[in-house]
Amino acid sequence: MANLPTNGEADTKEIDMASLPSSKRHNQNPDLDHHKVGVPSKQNLFKEFTNTVKETFFADDPLRHFKDQSKSRKFILGLHAVFPILDWGRGYNLKKFRGDLISGLTIASLCIPQDIGYSKLANLDPEYGLYSSFVPPLIYACMGSSRDIAIGPVAVVSLLLGTLIQNEIDPTKNPVEYRRLAFTATFFAGITQMTLGFFRLGFLIDFLSHAAIVGFMGGAAITIALQQLKGFLGIKGKHFTKNSDIISVLKSVFRSIHHGWNWQTILIGSVFLAFLLFAKMIGKKNKKLFWVPAIAPLISVILSTFFVFITHAEKKGVAIVNHIEKGLNPSSVHLLYLSGDNLLRGFKIGSVAGMIALTEATAIGRTFAAMKDYQLDGNKEMVALGAMNVVGSMTSCYVATGSFSRSAVNYMAGCQTAVSNIVMSVIVFLTLLFITPLFKYTPNAILASIIISAVINLIDYEAAILIWKIDKFDFVACMGAFFGVIFASVEIGLLIAVVISFAKILLQVTRPRTALLGNLPGTTIYRNLQQYPEAADVPGILVIRVDSAIYFSNSNYIKERILRWLVDEEEKRKKLYRPRIQFLIVEMSPVTDIDTSGIHALEELHKSLEKRNIQLALANPGPVVIEKLHASDFTSLIGEDNIYLTVAHAVHSCSPRVIEEA
Amino acid sequence: MANLPTNGEADTKEIDMASLPSSKRHNQNPDLDHHKVGVPSKQNLFKEFTNTVKETFFADDPLRHFKDQSKSRKFILGLHAVFPILDWGRGYNLKKFRGDLISGLTIASLCIPQDIGYSKLANLDPEYGLYSSFVPPLIYACMGSSRDIAIGPVAVVSLLLGTLIQNEIDPTKNPVEYRRLAFTATFFAGITQMTLGFFRLGFLIDFLSHAAIVGFMGGAAITIALQQLKGFLGIKGKHFTKNSDIISVLKSVFRSIHHGWNWQTILIGSVFLAFLLFAKMIGKKNKKLFWVPAIAPLISVILSTFFVFITHAEKKGVAIVNHIEKGLNPSSVHLLYLSGDNLLRGFKIGSVAGMIALTEATAIGRTFAAMKDYQLDGNKEMVALGAMNVVGSMTSCYVATGSFSRSAVNYMAGCQTAVSNIVMSVIVFLTLLFITPLFKYTPNAILASIIISAVINLIDYEAAILIWKIDKFDFVACMGAFFGVIFASVEIGLLIAVVISFAKILLQVTRPRTALLGNLPGTTIYRNLQQYPEAADVPGILVIRVDSAIYFSNSNYIKERILRWLVDEEEKRKKLYRPRIQFLIVEMSPVTDIDTSGIHALEELHKSLEKRNIQLALANPGPVVIEKLHASDFTSLIGEDNIYLTVAHAVHSCSPRVIEEA
Repeated sequence: MANLPTNGEADTKEIDMASLPSSKRHNQNPDLDHHKVGVPSKQNLFKEFTNTVKETFFADDPLRHFKDQSKSRKFILGLHAVFPILDWGRGYNLKKFRGDLISGLTIASLCIPQDIGYSKLANLDPEYGLYSSFVPPLIYACMGSSRDIAIGPVAVVSLLLGTLIQNEIDPTKNPVEYRRLAFTATFFAGITQMTLGFFRLGFLIDFLSHAAIVGFMGGAAITIALQQLKGFLGIKGKHFTKNSDIISVLKSVFRSIHHGWNWQTILIGSVFLAFLLFAKMIGKKNKKLFWVPAIAPLISVILSTFFVFITHAEKKGVAIVNHIEKGLNPSSVHLLYLSGDNLLRGFKIGSVAGMIALTEATAIGRTFAAMKDYQLDGNKEMVALGAMNVVGSMTSCYVATGSFSRSAVNYMAGCQTAVSNIVMSVIVFLTLLFITPLFKYTPNAILASIIISAVINLIDYEAAILIWKIDKFDFVACMGAFFGVIFASVEIGLLIAVVISFAKILLQVTRPRTALLGNLPGTTIYRNLQQYPEAADVPGILVIRVDSAIYFSNSNYIKERILRWLVDEEEKRKKLYRPRIQFLIVEMSPVTDIDTSGIHALEELHKSLEKRNIQLALANPGPVVIEKLHASDFTSLIGEDNIYLTVAHAVHSCSPRVIEEA
Repeated sequence: MANLPTNGEADTKEIDMASLPSSKRHNQNPDLDHHKVGVPSKQNLFKEFTNTVKETFFADDPLRHFKDQSKSRKFILGLHAVFPILDWGRGYNLKKFRGDLISGLTIASLCIPQDIGYSKLANLDPEYGLYSSFVPPLIYACMGSSRDIAIGPVAVVSLLLGTLIQNEIDPTKNPVEYRRLAFTATFFAGITQMTLGFFRLGFLIDFLSHAAIVGFMGGAAITIALQQLKGFLGIKGKHFTKNSDIISVLKSVFRSIHHGWNWQTILIGSVFLAFLLFAKMIGKKNKKLFWVPAIAPLISVILSTFFVFITHAEKKGVAIVNHIEKGLNPSSVHLLYLSGDNLLRGFKIGSVAGMIALTEATAIGRTFAAMKDYQLDGNKEMVALGAMNVVGSMTSCYVATGSFSRSAVNYMAGCQTAVSNIVMSVIVFLTLLFITPLFKYTPNAILASIIISAVINLIDYEAAILIWKIDKFDFVACMGAFFGVIFASVEIGLLIAVVISFAKILLQVTRPRTALLGNLPGTTIYRNLQQYPEAADVPGILVIRVDSAIYFSNSNYIKERILRWLVDEEEKRKKLYRPRIQFLIVEMSPVTDIDTSGIHALEELHKSLEKRNIQLALANPGPVVIEKLHASDFTSLIGEDNIYLTVAHAVHSCSPRVIEEA
């Protein structure tokens, strides 16, 4: 069947298997494999253009289902595309609901204390954290397509938002303006996310490398944990630093050692931190007990609140939450800054926070989609996340996204669909309506302990070790982001991560690899001499493989690198009294594309070789390359017959022409 | 000898030729080619690091000659490296001097009128152009290694400098400050060039693609020509626009049609422009008459000056040069801004102008080095060009670089070494000392004609057509730069060129190509099905080639693209009742590198395939890739025996295991 591409009969297999390796392999002469280098039929310009656009922006062919459908059907399909709940909602049943109910209750119990804590990271009152766990999950449940993600405020984005807005407006002096800027930033975070998704620019977030994110998250986790020391040690507000770098924070902590630490606070905090970490350990050891760490925070809150209430520890200096506004999210449409400087600030902060929120949500979505093997349209996800933040910004929420820890719990608790988010949202709704007053006596130290135990997971030292093992350059990016965050600030860390990621791309593009090839004895296979020491070079012929598209950014380097290989090899062979190099074969298989600069470089290479009396030959140029070589007449410059199907063909044709002159 | 890499005896060739294709080709079973995928011995970290650094910054191994030399010898070699004149100077002889003398005289006759004109583009008095053709060529002759480049002011850099400085300081109102900023910019242009060269960052200028430069140069030429209309039509100064875009200029030209054009000026200009273009045509038709267009400008200047002198046309409104300062370059060390805002401005303008000057000089250097087949060290060239501009900035010169037109004349006049630059410099020296007063009656219209006829060459429409033929994306970059320059400004055009160049790199990195492979009937060769329609797919097996390093920027795309190929092919084969795809072979030959994100993507791919009951196999991973696959334990995840030397091996091993189920 290898020979008959359209042959549908399966019973010819036995025969084909025999012919598969090659019926012509008996032949000593590879030229009798009469295949020529294929020149694909010329595409017209428009088609070429649309293909490029399609592959860049619509690689996943999102409109596939819309083909050949009636108008009304297209409308319904469109509706389903925007609101996947219409799709999976019809197949929803009681069995699935059981899974969603349990997981929804579990993540709700985890999210309520986290929300209260995280809103502090964002310098907002505790109710805003809860608001953000009510509206956004509902919107996401209707529009999102991940089944496992748990939506709400997360530690890193809260910290980032808090730091960036605090640089502009003081949250204690101007709480109203601060809040308005926070909503404005949330609005623009949502707009950014929707725009990226709608214009299918989702690939832009791929430019933040995995390694940089690992470092950034680890650094942010340490920064967050350090900032919790204030609540954990019961240090009074005013003298504590506003900076987030490790040095300022530790200085603040130790400066207040004699007249600020509160032993009762420390005691409560430590006991419950120990409890939380112990619960975490249990959950790690036995995957079935995943619910233990999941409900431990809520239990801690209940117990400590009760304890403070009966002992009146708040009178002994234990800081408590004191007040959480009762009732549902108020509208915040009128609070958005829609003109002036604050609009610009909101846009800047929002777009950064929105991008970071996206990287987190996208990573979660992908991970769980791969685990359960369903497809996620990344761009559609972004539209859903964006829409939920835009709506959120109008209902007093700040930036919400997918949370690593809660999504993992959601998955392990057996969630089936986004209904678990709805369940969580309903619980938060009830909490807001009825039980916020009960949080009055919750000590801040507990919230600090909960945050510390939550962010510890973000320090992924195993990933860092793996990165070190695999790729040293990645490790530099990882550590750059990490130290940038903890010693400078979140923004600097982020900047370092982005810059190093880009530097890596540029390095790859400017300095592609090239390799000398040799023949594996007894085969027609040519392989990298460094990787296969048994491979042997060919007398009078130099075979070089170029491992990248030849573009303006590397064309000169490639040309000069090839000439350097040539000079080095010439010297080496001269010493061994072997024949002078008379043919230079460039293996072009990995060269997927070439541009005008690349062709210039090849022409210059050809010219230089001509001066040295060396013939240039190309092996296996790809479809795009051969088309461009033809278009530029390079093929006729070096001679059509100097372009071969494989290196073996080229060697076979050149070898007999090598003249014996040492 | 293919089998005996160190065998030096040439007379075994006949035998080897026979064995070359493969002594094992009779064997039907490619597995009997008992080669395994090579795993290179692990390099230690330090070596790996130094190798990367070396390949990035010292790709040309500049210290090669310094190895194993005594200290004093190293010093002398170092001196020779900085001043190549010490090297080639010893072999210099009278015969070479004859060539240099003739070419030096020719380029001097060409450069004097051009210098006077170009200094106007830079809004400087005419003598500064001459100054810049006196000192810099001398410095370059000592330090540079190109034998053909002709140094001096050039049109595009003059225009760029003029536009950029004019944005900061008005040249008519504050001529002294303007001049000071010009020298400061020149100083920093030199510093930028030296820095790039010294830190071996020369590759950075490769990021400006050839296509973008063609567009930029063409646009700049048209802009320059348009600006000459003022001098050419004899329009009086004040009402003429300061903007350089085509619309403003043409508006100014037509607004002044009734009360500004001077017919005597137009007459003189047109006659000599016709003469210059005619001379150019002669030079083009007969390469031996290259000296005709080379001396035509000087002849025009002499004739027209004489004509104005005897007819006193300057009294009839023909604008004349009037005054060129007599005497050598005065020192300008004390004029450099070394603090304050103007330092920063000078730095900004200088670094841009310095980079553009470098692209021009580097392109010239490379072109002629390739034509005469000598090696140029790009980074050393940059140091030489930088040094000459630094010295120039202290001796009242503005940015000088290699001129396309004069270098071509230099080459054709038979220059042998940089001595032709010294000859030119001496002529300019004599001109400055003795004959500048003679230029008093030179009409400005002649200078305009000379500039127009000089910059016409920069409009390389043939290159633009070729770019269109070869690469449409390049053409967009070219046109973007072109229209940016003529409709907006030089800076905007430059910015567009840089942005499009970068976008192209990013596109290449994010959306690499992948290809379905098929077996060429009768061979063990697997090739792109699109390029080779005769290739046939293999029943039950899908072969996909990934054409790029797998990095964080494309790992997700590659994974999803492979899964998409899989889904499409599954559908297609199902329709044809062919066996279900049970093996997915990824041809890794072009995958030169992989990072942690890439390995993640492969793991996710493996997981997805497992769910579909498809086995993943890899063919021919390169040395770096196989090492990282081992380091991350990916090899044991998919099974060591699922990594094959070639696609043929993989197919041969998988095919018998394909189960018949349609």
